[in-house]
Amino acid sequence: MKKNILIGQSGGPTVAINASLSGVVRQAMRSEEIGEIYGMLNGIEGLLQRRIVDIRKSFTDSEDYARLAATPAMILGSCRFKLPAPPHEAYDQILQIFKDYNIGMFFYIGGNDSMDTVKQLSAFFHEKGEDIRCVGIPKTVDNDLPLTDHTPGFASAAKYVATSIAEVYRDSSVYDMFSVIVFEIMGRNAGWLTAAAALARDSGCPAPQMIYLPEAPFDPDKFIEKVKSHTTEKKLLIIAVSEGLKLANGDYVSAAGATKDAFGHVALAGTGKYLEELIKDRVGCKVRSVEFSVLQRAASHCASATDISESMMIGEEGVRAALAGKTGVMMAFIREGNAPYLVGCKSVPIEQCANLEKIVPAEWITDEGSNVSEEMMEYLRPLVKGRAPYFEENGMPSFFVLDKTIVSK
Amino acid sequence: MKKNILIGQSGGPTVAINASLSGVVRQAMRSEEIGEIYGMLNGIEGLLQRRIVDIRKSFTDSEDYARLAATPAMILGSCRFKLPAPPHEAYDQILQIFKDYNIGMFFYIGGNDSMDTVKQLSAFFHEKGEDIRCVGIPKTVDNDLPLTDHTPGFASAAKYVATSIAEVYRDSSVYDMFSVIVFEIMGRNAGWLTAAAALARDSGCPAPQMIYLPEAPFDPDKFIEKVKSHTTEKKLLIIAVSEGLKLANGDYVSAAGATKDAFGHVALAGTGKYLEELIKDRVGCKVRSVEFSVLQRAASHCASATDISESMMIGEEGVRAALAGKTGVMMAFIREGNAPYLVGCKSVPIEQCANLEKIVPAEWITDEGSNVSEEMMEYLRPLVKGRAPYFEENGMPSFFVLDKTIVSK
Repeated sequence: MKKNILIGQSGGPTVAINASLSGVVRQAMRSEEIGEIYGMLNGIEGLLQRRIVDIRKSFTDSEDYARLAATPAMILGSCRFKLPAPPHEAYDQILQIFKDYNIGMFFYIGGNDSMDTVKQLSAFFHEKGEDIRCVGIPKTVDNDLPLTDHTPGFASAAKYVATSIAEVYRDSSVYDMFSVIVFEIMGRNAGWLTAAAALARDSGCPAPQMIYLPEAPFDPDKFIEKVKSHTTEKKLLIIAVSEGLKLANGDYVSAAGATKDAFGHVALAGTGKYLEELIKDRVGCKVRSVEFSVLQRAASHCASATDISESMMIGEEGVRAALAGKTGVMMAFIREGNAPYLVGCKSVPIEQCANLEKIVPAEWITDEGSNVSEEMMEYLRPLVKGRAPYFEENGMPSFFVLDKTIVSK
Repeated sequence: MKKNILIGQSGGPTVAINASLSGVVRQAMRSEEIGEIYGMLNGIEGLLQRRIVDIRKSFTDSEDYARLAATPAMILGSCRFKLPAPPHEAYDQILQIFKDYNIGMFFYIGGNDSMDTVKQLSAFFHEKGEDIRCVGIPKTVDNDLPLTDHTPGFASAAKYVATSIAEVYRDSSVYDMFSVIVFEIMGRNAGWLTAAAALARDSGCPAPQMIYLPEAPFDPDKFIEKVKSHTTEKKLLIIAVSEGLKLANGDYVSAAGATKDAFGHVALAGTGKYLEELIKDRVGCKVRSVEFSVLQRAASHCASATDISESMMIGEEGVRAALAGKTGVMMAFIREGNAPYLVGCKSVPIEQCANLEKIVPAEWITDEGSNVSEEMMEYLRPLVKGRAPYFEENGMPSFFVLDKTIVSK
């Protein structure tokens, strides 16, 4: 008897999270063992409210798979809800919903917290003797999930950050004088995305000349010394820093920048803004800071073709794994080689990856914490290759449209 | 006898200023009346130091024209130097340099100040009885030059801003709750680029729901009232504001946000940051501000095909005008129709445009200064159509490389 599947998306957005959904849907459409393809709106939170939609209905054209893959963020919506540890009534509610909709396979596309949900649910279903397979499909711009070579969504953010820095170097170096731009890049604990700024150098510019990751303790004096060593060059100095930069005592660098805003509230300056002020104070040169903010995880118009196609693949492989009987697993990328670059997928036990963080290895951080190694560059380079398919109508992006009619059971 | 030509670039960067250079070079290459094609490094400032290069040398492949057009900012470098009013020794120096290099035509690609330089030089050469033709080719992301339907570079910045807002709406609306993002967009006195944020709606999203231009006096109380009227909607409110927003008394809104930075220096918050703090204080909801900063004028990876091809055309037409004997002119776009969109070029007397600003007409600003009219949308729409050619190598932008060997005479 055919089983229905249920898919959810959770956590913070990336531009590849719909590509993985697209891959799950495409592979499910191909399978004769799969009946309905359901989506839950706003993750587990929406599931508990039975906000379930029929995904098949929204696919009417063969281009829809690529169009969904070119749509940023979660088309199904997201949530920040983390399933409480069992026992908890939510588990029985979820099981009842799964039975009502005849769900045999559950796919959850998300980051750390979402993998924890997959872990809890698969353990619960197993304990109850239910054959409901639970597969986690990773995503995060932070690239901080263990057991996978890299995570879907990371490479597109990396491509956007490095491309923008390469362009801004061209822009702000037209004046033949020394000046500084500090770019603040996402990454609270893991510096992968900040490290990727180094790829801008492959466009033929020296920037970013300094790179600081949260993994290495930040020394303001050495930092200023290094900035000063560049002042004799009549050119633009670009510095890439992680938002989560910390001092040797573990305090966030940005905490030092706490001031009062125009209304007297204490306001934390961003790390980039604080370093801008530090340079202004101690070096006295022309300096500005730029925060990529949400732009870096939403820029589908600059997505990596490699990222988007791999993100579709990992979704497809997730369906294959579930059909083969896997449950309580996360899908992972295995890099089989760099020349030529080749990546495969495998499933890994979810308890080995849920709630764990993969940070940048110390030996990939060089020059007293102000640069990254050639190993890092070799790791990063293949990931950002190619421009992903992009759809445009009248000059504006043309996104996938999901029919959000609720299916009641 | 063949005449040599000299080209310079000046002012603030855009992504289309090299497309205009490419157009000048291409048309000059086609002409039998033109000998050498010289470029001045860092505008008039570099010219006075005789920093002159041979541009022909850098063109070795037919793809080079498109590659130069896809390279952001000024490949020749820029300057902020404005020629002092005559009489001044700089004029005689420049005439001598022009004679030494046998320059018969001078093309200056830039904004307001650059057009003033063209005006001064053409008047000076005319007074001296020299047949040296001076043609200004406009550019500015601000779109604030008079007598031209629009300016090269504006539409690409517009496309980037609107595309990014459309993507961020997708990104930050995944959580089914009310929140606010304020985008600060370039434009000190003219709100064209901020108005272009409205194009994001053509991607099928309601954002930006509020738009504020510097042309309309800003009322903080009415602004907060309007924000509050959105709080019942469980969705993201995006507000687009010009950096140059002013209160009814003429003060910059951002001046109200003056605080002390972490080092005790008085720091002006940006307009977006100040409005973020105002909303936090008076509405108390989740709010963040994003400043496009230099990203918006450097993003060649999101350039408008219409803008880049028109920017090449206006460069070509500049050469045709000079060959036809025109001098003391600025090249301008004439819109011949919207359905189908058709644009031509003509030359206009430079004294009619130098040092003048074109602002957004009052009747194109609607809803008590919080939106733009359908006329504005019709004006903007054709400009952002199409994705411009883009060159990439190993995932990073591949830019045009200029041979900067100085040619001494």
